[in-house]
Amino acid sequence: MKFATLKSQSPDGTLVMLSRDLSTAVSIADIAPTLQYALENWTQCQALFQECYDALNAGRRKDALSLESVQFDAPLPRSWQWLDGSCFLNHGHLMQKAFHLDPIEDADKYPLMYQGAGDNFSGPEDDIVVADATHGADFEGEFAVITGDVEMGATPAEAAQAIRLVVMLNDISYRGLAPREMKTGFGFVQAKGATAFAPIAVTPDELGEHWRDNRAHLTMQITRNGVPFGHPHGREMHFGFDQLIAHAALTRTLQAGTVIGSGTVSNKDPDVGQACISELRAKELIAHGAPQTSFLQHGEVVALKATDNSGSSVFGEICQYVKVENKHV
Amino acid sequence: MKFATLKSQSPDGTLVMLSRDLSTAVSIADIAPTLQYALENWTQCQALFQECYDALNAGRRKDALSLESVQFDAPLPRSWQWLDGSCFLNHGHLMQKAFHLDPIEDADKYPLMYQGAGDNFSGPEDDIVVADATHGADFEGEFAVITGDVEMGATPAEAAQAIRLVVMLNDISYRGLAPREMKTGFGFVQAKGATAFAPIAVTPDELGEHWRDNRAHLTMQITRNGVPFGHPHGREMHFGFDQLIAHAALTRTLQAGTVIGSGTVSNKDPDVGQACISELRAKELIAHGAPQTSFLQHGEVVALKATDNSGSSVFGEICQYVKVENKHV
Repeated sequence: MKFATLKSQSPDGTLVMLSRDLSTAVSIADIAPTLQYALENWTQCQALFQECYDALNAGRRKDALSLESVQFDAPLPRSWQWLDGSCFLNHGHLMQKAFHLDPIEDADKYPLMYQGAGDNFSGPEDDIVVADATHGADFEGEFAVITGDVEMGATPAEAAQAIRLVVMLNDISYRGLAPREMKTGFGFVQAKGATAFAPIAVTPDELGEHWRDNRAHLTMQITRNGVPFGHPHGREMHFGFDQLIAHAALTRTLQAGTVIGSGTVSNKDPDVGQACISELRAKELIAHGAPQTSFLQHGEVVALKATDNSGSSVFGEICQYVKVENKHV
Repeated sequence: MKFATLKSQSPDGTLVMLSRDLSTAVSIADIAPTLQYALENWTQCQALFQECYDALNAGRRKDALSLESVQFDAPLPRSWQWLDGSCFLNHGHLMQKAFHLDPIEDADKYPLMYQGAGDNFSGPEDDIVVADATHGADFEGEFAVITGDVEMGATPAEAAQAIRLVVMLNDISYRGLAPREMKTGFGFVQAKGATAFAPIAVTPDELGEHWRDNRAHLTMQITRNGVPFGHPHGREMHFGFDQLIAHAALTRTLQAGTVIGSGTVSNKDPDVGQACISELRAKELIAHGAPQTSFLQHGEVVALKATDNSGSSVFGEICQYVKVENKHV
């Protein structure tokens, strides 16, 4: 099944279901007013969702919305818990090589993961609002899952059963602020902005062969001002989402609606480019002794989508305009 | 004004208002069903709250609840954003001295702050559920504020205006898991459990002279199994809550209901004891070459309250039983 949330007066928006071919959508507010409600009441909602999805795909719903006029929010516009991994180890290796950093101990045994702010996710076309041009604004193309309830101490197999939806996101990062925060050991607060999401959340079964080993086997397609920037693939994720969920649940229960991200998608093959500016700058630093590509400036446009083997867009597109409030640089 | 939340079928509980002397309470669900709702609609609710509070304090409310039979949840049972500082610098200095750690650079200029999990706060009498005895379960007595909406880039003066409520909490910490997570630079995920809150949230004006310089000038009173453990005072907080809020808002807006904590209360005077076990163990390590006090074991009871200059309890009491699921140690 495929879900999206339309912007409304409420911060949680209004839940809609999309047809498999993404051509039509219907409101399912009569079943679940919001995606958070759906996640908290998944078992009770599931049969009704399926009935609606079948009717929609068969063209039997006469109340279908025109997708031209709607304004999408993030599928889950806010989450009680947003945790983000850094599970494409190639990214870390490049950063360490470029900046002569010590490798993070056991990063191949325990997933790197930080707690992020889930109070205010951005919709796919919301501006990237940057406080100051000196903060080094960057994007990060990532896959993520949204979970149901997870018990403390859940195994990866149990965790896999709690994966309700797969989504795609842009993790806004401020590279000028991250090094100081990382050095404290307390993690990122100022160094992360409002995370933006592609409009469509899909159940894992919709991905078919593209969902294997609890990883999204999809290609992330990124452009910067319309110019191709990277097309790395999800298969090189070192830990599966089942392992990420189990890692997070070691000492706590996770409530329905928890979002867990993969970290920026990154591949060993240099020909595929990258999913964030800092990785390109690291490659430039290694190759030329200095980075050549600038971080995001006022007026730029970043676009991300994920495609399957047939080239179809799975989650719809993130397309964000950069708005720097203080343009003094 | 003084607020509390009673446990109910809903994860957000039911909002009540308490009289100034804490002797009676009334439901204010007709004004605001939950504290989150109240925080999101503060301006519209304020006059109605005040009218109710005046009537309650004057003994004019005949529908007052008996406080004997109610079960308190955290005042805000879940928050879209929970950020915790570490602003009593004496605590950090002791930890660095005991464990021969390098001082955290600029910790006196920029508040140390990590993003925590706000999805599932504990009520004042909920068990501390520990997954494994080897995790080194500890408590941390802290003060915190709950904010209204805060604009990106807010100054400390603007941030001070957004402080709606003052609360007290127990930040459950797993000392056996923290060092590995700190070393990654990504901050605490596994090393923090469900944060517990004292039942009563108060508006800053209720604290009178005990709210100065955006700090809680109150004494934290902690017992472990009924034995006094510490009574440090809030005045030595290096940054005010106005500065903590402004720090957090540098690159993001904060939504109404954001909770920002002080970090474990700690004083230079060794006679006042401490608000967490790890600080006592650090003192023992410095004095005797080895820690002597154990972390929390199954069956222990931790109690915290904060008192004003007259000795009155301001937020009510946290009293938690420790339940270790895996007792193999």
